[in-house]
Amino acid sequence: MSRDNPAAIAVELRLRIDELYAHYIACLDEARYDAWPGFFTEDCVYKVLPRENHDRKLPLATIAAESRGMLIDRVYGMQNTLFHQPYYQRHMVSGLFVRGVDYAGDAADTAGGRRLLTQANYAVFRTKQNALSEVFNVGRYIDIIVEREGRLLFAEKLCVFDSELIPNSLIYPI
Amino acid sequence: MSRDNPAAIAVELRLRIDELYAHYIACLDEARYDAWPGFFTEDCVYKVLPRENHDRKLPLATIAAESRGMLIDRVYGMQNTLFHQPYYQRHMVSGLFVRGVDYAGDAADTAGGRRLLTQANYAVFRTKQNALSEVFNVGRYIDIIVEREGRLLFAEKLCVFDSELIPNSLIYPI
Amino acid sequence: MSRDNPAAIAVELRLRIDELYAHYIACLDEARYDAWPGFFTEDCVYKVLPRENHDRKLPLATIAAESRGMLIDRVYGMQNTLFHQPYYQRHMVSGLFVRGVDYAGDAADTAGGRRLLTQANYAVFRTKQNALSEVFNVGRYIDIIVEREGRLLFAEKLCVFDSELIPNSLIYPI
Repeated sequence: MSRDNPAAIAVELRLRIDELYAHYIACLDEARYDAWPGFFTEDCVYKVLPRENHDRKLPLATIAAESRGMLIDRVYGMQNTLFHQPYYQRHMVSGLFVRGVDYAGDAADTAGGRRLLTQANYAVFRTKQNALSEVFNVGRYIDIIVEREGRLLFAEKLCVFDSELIPNSLIYPI
Repeated sequence: MSRDNPAAIAVELRLRIDELYAHYIACLDEARYDAWPGFFTEDCVYKVLPRENHDRKLPLATIAAESRGMLIDRVYGMQNTLFHQPYYQRHMVSGLFVRGVDYAGDAADTAGGRRLLTQANYAVFRTKQNALSEVFNVGRYIDIIVEREGRLLFAEKLCVFDSELIPNSLIYPI
Repeated sequence: MSRDNPAAIAVELRLRIDELYAHYIACLDEARYDAWPGFFTEDCVYKVLPRENHDRKLPLATIAAESRGMLIDRVYGMQNTLFHQPYYQRHMVSGLFVRGVDYAGDAADTAGGRRLLTQANYAVFRTKQNALSEVFNVGRYIDIIVEREGRLLFAEKLCVFDSELIPNSLIYPI
């Protein structure tokens, strides 16, 4: 396994992974939140957590969900119960690469037999009403992608952000 | 048409689209403005408009041009008549994907027969003289690309930005 | 040589170049600085310099190294002697393209015979302890990549940044 091509996946699959991220951020930035849980497996893990906690393996996360159902609940909360000023998000993703490929024995977890371990940097800009766009949250995605019925889905998505100062204002998904 | 691969275009074409955007932003960020209209078809549409107006289908745009000739005029204005403090731009483009492929009947519009409908997020940083780099304008490109004589060109480019607070200071193309 | 495909390199090589940048920024952003010199050839050139100096061909650079050994020294300095407040970096790279391909006669410089001339925009966000993430340094990479023993390495990397106001606080590599 060389550093140049650690996972030796085919070009077409590599581009499909690119597109998964492109569609994911388009979904969020266009505020189509109802479609957001559809990017995840039913038994997914989704967490937004500060880098310090991730590096020290501390369990505390700003947002933590352990199923697609919890993501659906989160969307409901965002749209109906959480009190917040609305804002626009704009995601940039860069430096995407495949960390490795996993052949888990658990067939339920790995339709097709393969789990793609990916990583990418992200930056999210926030624009509040009548305000300038500003840097909101930067960090990296540490993800696991599986294929289910011909579609790539996130089995796990960790959003590990660099600054500790944003958590309470973090309403929409990263 | 799956979400993973909505337009089923060939890998080589996909990479050529990537390169089109790479050259486009390099042209702008190196301030080679005279070359900028060359990225567009003669009968192109180019608009920079706030997200609110786009979402509500309001016609008002901060910048609007309906031909390559108008882009050339814009460049002339930037360089000769518009009074402004010069600044550097630095573009980042992310999340590029092909929304679809169009087979327009109008041959004049579609040499090769095909129109590629693309979308991508962008972020532009501005650096004024003796100042720090700052977030200037973020949003998304909603574009239509055609092939003419072996080159990909923008038949339409909408730059839909998230904040309403920048228009009067927007001098150079996005 | 068309604008669409100036260097006519194969798809697989193009994706390997993408991955080189992805791994490069991951290395820096994860603060694995000891691994950073390994991205360069032994006789590499690495410079961080303001755009004004680059455009006017002035020699002054904020950071300049002319061998991998000097990069190793730089890492030692960062970690042991340079007095500074630590901060996190987060790189975004966008608009990567191959400017051209060089067939240098000097075999020592060109295992495989080929030098890939690349360019990309970058933006670096900085996060200090107990502070918000902020725009730190934006500019472009102007690089030369060679292949050595099956791995892509930087023979030259110029980090040409847009603002002149950051040099004395620039500790970690860009």
